[in-house]
Amino acid sequence: MHTFMDRDAFGRLVGIEAVFIEPGRARMRLDPDDRHRNGLGMVHGGALFTLADLALAAASNAGDHSAVAINAGMTFVKPGRKGPLFAEARELSAGRTIAAYAVDVTDEGGALLATFTATVYRREKKA
Amino acid sequence: MHTFMDRDAFGRLVGIEAVFIEPGRARMRLDPDDRHRNGLGMVHGGALFTLADLALAAASNAGDHSAVAINAGMTFVKPGRKGPLFAEARELSAGRTIAAYAVDVTDEGGALLATFTATVYRREKKA
Amino acid sequence: MHTFMDRDAFGRLVGIEAVFIEPGRARMRLDPDDRHRNGLGMVHGGALFTLADLALAAASNAGDHSAVAINAGMTFVKPGRKGPLFAEARELSAGRTIAAYAVDVTDEGGALLATFTATVYRREKKA
Amino acid sequence: MHTFMDRDAFGRLVGIEAVFIEPGRARMRLDPDDRHRNGLGMVHGGALFTLADLALAAASNAGDHSAVAINAGMTFVKPGRKGPLFAEARELSAGRTIAAYAVDVTDEGGALLATFTATVYRREKKA
Repeated sequence: MHTFMDRDAFGRLVGIEAVFIEPGRARMRLDPDDRHRNGLGMVHGGALFTLADLALAAASNAGDHSAVAINAGMTFVKPGRKGPLFAEARELSAGRTIAAYAVDVTDEGGALLATFTATVYRREKKA
Repeated sequence: MHTFMDRDAFGRLVGIEAVFIEPGRARMRLDPDDRHRNGLGMVHGGALFTLADLALAAASNAGDHSAVAINAGMTFVKPGRKGPLFAEARELSAGRTIAAYAVDVTDEGGALLATFTATVYRREKKA
Repeated sequence: MHTFMDRDAFGRLVGIEAVFIEPGRARMRLDPDDRHRNGLGMVHGGALFTLADLALAAASNAGDHSAVAINAGMTFVKPGRKGPLFAEARELSAGRTIAAYAVDVTDEGGALLATFTATVYRREKKA
Repeated sequence: MHTFMDRDAFGRLVGIEAVFIEPGRARMRLDPDDRHRNGLGMVHGGALFTLADLALAAASNAGDHSAVAINAGMTFVKPGRKGPLFAEARELSAGRTIAAYAVDVTDEGGALLATFTATVYRREKKA
């Protein structure tokens, strides 16, 4: 867990922390402050995407594969105003080289702010 | 131009600069350094998304509407390694309340790193 | 229920039937045969998309709004081979003019074949 | 060209024809009639998706690889009313096992009705 976030410099710049990381599943947390807002005062779409993307990366790299995203789609359903915000990734499918994940971004009360679906290309880690 | 980036705190945190902003069209620049990398040493997907999202936001808010993203899809075609990187947004269509944009993310030589397509909800700015 | 499918000519051409339709929720069924296959013998991506899109359309038009899709993203996680196949839509959020839906496409045993996320633009139906 | 459409049963059911097919590039045509409409009288999203998906499949299978879609995103920018309609696919990138494509769906006058972006998983065809 520490290892993953230690290596992800951009996640640290944004201020994201890991809640838990397991193979195929991970939960990340962001406590947004004034640095995370867009011109309208909402938590920036780029911050929400980064939160979801880190949950994806952690979940898809936690087992015996290394993985990189091929594509990602995000639907914004409700503006984020204050934190903490969470992103939780779960594996939908995993084949030899392709896996698919869904990530929900929620606020502290569990209200859905955004959904994120992504596919990754993966390889077995070398021993 | 200055006004837009002055208001976007997250864009400043990430280090993004506006190259040009016009109604329906905008170009953003990021000079990635070690803070922008993921655990694999690539420019982070969240940084590329934020770069594209800022181009979208600038282009869709530069005219007489204010706009927020409803959804965005990003396809990663080539890893970003070093900069400068650019994202350029262009309007595909614009109706009374919905508009669609395509954004290409490229490196200095013009090679495509990622494509981004998004729709926004927009309202006329009040006089 | 009958009314909706009576009006949707393309759904009838493809051979899709409604299982149930309620405001914000709908389930569709397709019994694929040789007409629904692609060149590799799998149920065609276009058939799976149409199945999901009909579930979306039924769910988002069943209440007091009429709705049209703005965008849709589909992730294919497992090939469809034989039927029946199902698509079930559920509303993620609904505002005055924008609503978001998730649709799961599954086989008879409940295995996930594809996920589909879409946003719609909606208006109140006239009395 | 004939071979591809001969094998794609669902494309024939929908009434799609190939205009040209080359490795990495293909153009498809649909002349919509009453069978292709939704309940609102527009050309069905499922028909537009199928048109785009066939252009993708033809372009990505025309060379020395066989390919299947991993994901696809479609943004609907203008309703289709009458035909002919066209979808043209072009390759954005192609690696050993992953390739990305953009497809534009247009009407006879060249007006954009929808954009479609997809990634495929591909393997070399056996000799």
